[in-house]
Amino acid sequence: MQNKRKIPAPFFEIGPKAIMYGDELLALAKAADAASKKYDVRIIFTPQPADIYPIAKATKELLVFAQHIDPLPPGRGLGSVLAESVRAAGAVGAMLNHAEKPLTLNSLKKCIDRAKSADLMTIVCADSIAEARAVAMLGPDIIVAEPTELIGTGKTSDMSYVLESIRAVKEIDPEIQVLQGAGISTGQDVYDVIYAGADATGCTSGILLAKDPFAMLEEMISAVRRAFDDRNGRPD
Amino acid sequence: MQNKRKIPAPFFEIGPKAIMYGDELLALAKAADAASKKYDVRIIFTPQPADIYPIAKATKELLVFAQHIDPLPPGRGLGSVLAESVRAAGAVGAMLNHAEKPLTLNSLKKCIDRAKSADLMTIVCADSIAEARAVAMLGPDIIVAEPTELIGTGKTSDMSYVLESIRAVKEIDPEIQVLQGAGISTGQDVYDVIYAGADATGCTSGILLAKDPFAMLEEMISAVRRAFDDRNGRPD
Amino acid sequence: MQNKRKIPAPFFEIGPKAIMYGDELLALAKAADAASKKYDVRIIFTPQPADIYPIAKATKELLVFAQHIDPLPPGRGLGSVLAESVRAAGAVGAMLNHAEKPLTLNSLKKCIDRAKSADLMTIVCADSIAEARAVAMLGPDIIVAEPTELIGTGKTSDMSYVLESIRAVKEIDPEIQVLQGAGISTGQDVYDVIYAGADATGCTSGILLAKDPFAMLEEMISAVRRAFDDRNGRPD
Amino acid sequence: MQNKRKIPAPFFEIGPKAIMYGDELLALAKAADAASKKYDVRIIFTPQPADIYPIAKATKELLVFAQHIDPLPPGRGLGSVLAESVRAAGAVGAMLNHAEKPLTLNSLKKCIDRAKSADLMTIVCADSIAEARAVAMLGPDIIVAEPTELIGTGKTSDMSYVLESIRAVKEIDPEIQVLQGAGISTGQDVYDVIYAGADATGCTSGILLAKDPFAMLEEMISAVRRAFDDRNGRPD
Repeated sequence: MQNKRKIPAPFFEIGPKAIMYGDELLALAKAADAASKKYDVRIIFTPQPADIYPIAKATKELLVFAQHIDPLPPGRGLGSVLAESVRAAGAVGAMLNHAEKPLTLNSLKKCIDRAKSADLMTIVCADSIAEARAVAMLGPDIIVAEPTELIGTGKTSDMSYVLESIRAVKEIDPEIQVLQGAGISTGQDVYDVIYAGADATGCTSGILLAKDPFAMLEEMISAVRRAFDDRNGRPD
Repeated sequence: MQNKRKIPAPFFEIGPKAIMYGDELLALAKAADAASKKYDVRIIFTPQPADIYPIAKATKELLVFAQHIDPLPPGRGLGSVLAESVRAAGAVGAMLNHAEKPLTLNSLKKCIDRAKSADLMTIVCADSIAEARAVAMLGPDIIVAEPTELIGTGKTSDMSYVLESIRAVKEIDPEIQVLQGAGISTGQDVYDVIYAGADATGCTSGILLAKDPFAMLEEMISAVRRAFDDRNGRPD
Repeated sequence: MQNKRKIPAPFFEIGPKAIMYGDELLALAKAADAASKKYDVRIIFTPQPADIYPIAKATKELLVFAQHIDPLPPGRGLGSVLAESVRAAGAVGAMLNHAEKPLTLNSLKKCIDRAKSADLMTIVCADSIAEARAVAMLGPDIIVAEPTELIGTGKTSDMSYVLESIRAVKEIDPEIQVLQGAGISTGQDVYDVIYAGADATGCTSGILLAKDPFAMLEEMISAVRRAFDDRNGRPD
Repeated sequence: MQNKRKIPAPFFEIGPKAIMYGDELLALAKAADAASKKYDVRIIFTPQPADIYPIAKATKELLVFAQHIDPLPPGRGLGSVLAESVRAAGAVGAMLNHAEKPLTLNSLKKCIDRAKSADLMTIVCADSIAEARAVAMLGPDIIVAEPTELIGTGKTSDMSYVLESIRAVKEIDPEIQVLQGAGISTGQDVYDVIYAGADATGCTSGILLAKDPFAMLEEMISAVRRAFDDRNGRPD
């Protein structure tokens, strides 16, 4: 586990959602941990809350993030996901405002503040360039620029969207990192997005629903490294 | 861990909400585990989702319940709490519809069905006699009859409410167990409710915010046993 | 406008949802008003909240219902729909808990109580037999037994569902009226449901999205009358 | 009724929430209409949705705004408040994202877009400077800079907050108007905020719960005019 507020590029997010859990997910997490080391690519891994503890204990390189935290401080709040609790279980960050768990503007602000006070990084989803700009005003560490209509489709954002969203966020705050999500389904998709200039991308169904999730994981993480090196003129 | 659909009376629920988590909660869970054995009182323990795994691993007698599950099946649903995931982490049940995490009638029905298919018991909260009757129609294992206006006040339901809510639920389905919650703050409160005829009661702030939570836990669990035996004419 | 707590059978609900509004809806409301008188069939008409006033002013027979009210009493609650406000505008009832506006069990209870105190009838939707039983415990005037998966499909509930849902509700409280919704798209569908024993049915897209909504309205309301008379052996 | 996308300063918002409705509110609306003309101060009036029609019909100067609209387009959406429906009833704008009706970031974006396509102005609430900046990215017409913790307290924002929030919004888009809300309870409060540089302010409980709402309305609207003229050096 690491916990730096700025993750060195390139990095990649694997989002198991509610697709995989328990021992099966633990095995995938261990494979991701090995791939992270092998290819020197940081991997954000976002399991179900009940899977945070065993995965954090069993891995060294993975950046385990909660899928969500609630805006409330320690105290009442039965049924919530408390920032401090996921931190204590081994998470180093939290995803917020995914299209499947949208937050009110006010809760989003509070969640980002709560994450900071619990020493958690934040990766916040935005559905459009305008929303990415709005989110940038709230001080997250990473923004996922992911048009909702592409989620789970296997259709990627086009490169103009990729570049425009990076530019829009960096204009407001150059310290915020931008992850290009939505529709990544092959190693080639990963290569294209990173080579075009993104510092990070990620995948859910492309890996989790692949015939062989382990092979696809390897294919994608190696593609991150290759694209990033090619883009920056890797020394032979 | 046990998983019987009907918990033998008397039993008790400890609900840490978002008050306690991590190592501190683990220590309390171990003390509850010991008290459960010592007094032969079943204890439902409902930690934050990220605390389910370590607590389930470290205890033998506790019935670890999730504070909440979402109605969705395995698949999409980023930010959710999946029934199968908490089951895999060691939970044997889930609480549903607490006043701090209310569910739509339709989601409540789905959650109860989802819990069954993931082999989780359900303990469902109801805010009034009418709501307890409505919940009884949906087939939960246990109903918490807890008038919201008393939660956290240290003021208990009066005995007529206790008896009427038990009767209302049992009339519809005698297999459903009834837990009398709300406002329990001393061992005497516990004694009174169990002695009056309840098979179960529970506590959050009375234990969690006590000067010495461990001592209060012991006081309450021993009171459960004493009241139950006194009520049933304990053989010396 | 009428306001009797029990609407004499047969009756019919027309639900414009957010499909039609303003002058166009007002014209349809007037046609429904005329059909109600012509066929001696009570019609519940549920416009958008901003359309309640003009429709209630322009009609005599229609039972104008709000599509929803919120559980709050007069006071704070910006952005809410207040029971007393829709009552003052001319509504005589409110629909609650439709699949497109689901309520928590606790809010549903409060909304039914609030409606009573504002002298509004309630028509509450239930998605399954179990939910219809649960709703019946909360004291509504009318229950809509409408399996969500059929809404807007043009596929009607089968007759065993119709009869079982009526029986389930009447067993709990024979005073509650049952409206069979979901999937009514022709006058024949209306005839079949009423003839089978329902006292009421209703329609949204079948009328609102018909090529000629006025003609379809006439076809359906006349079918209600015909089926009801045939069922009861109309004197020639 | 007017509908200009930019309301000439100074202006004032009266928010009846769910406090007043029906004939009583209609009388207050008429008084506001007269005060608007008398003092040449534009007044945004935000009634319950069922009160929009009669108030819009009975007034000439008032800018009637809905308290809320939903993000959905015409079609399904039972229980919603449709932009086109409130527009047809006479509203010229909609309030969005009040602390009592918070919107997800994504819905807020959609509601602003929907309002535009239905020819409604938008007045969007923000709870902090950071949130005001975020909202400014979404293209509303007016932003209410209102720290939630002051709502209904009779304690006003201090002047540094007033000026900083105006500056923060104007930096992003000088066309967006800023209304300083929260805690206005006397004519003097109104005078102070406008004199300090705000173009607009507003009030709910200060007027609605006043011993004499009509007198307080007059006091506040006249204070708007006086402060604005004093600030700009009224020619005698």
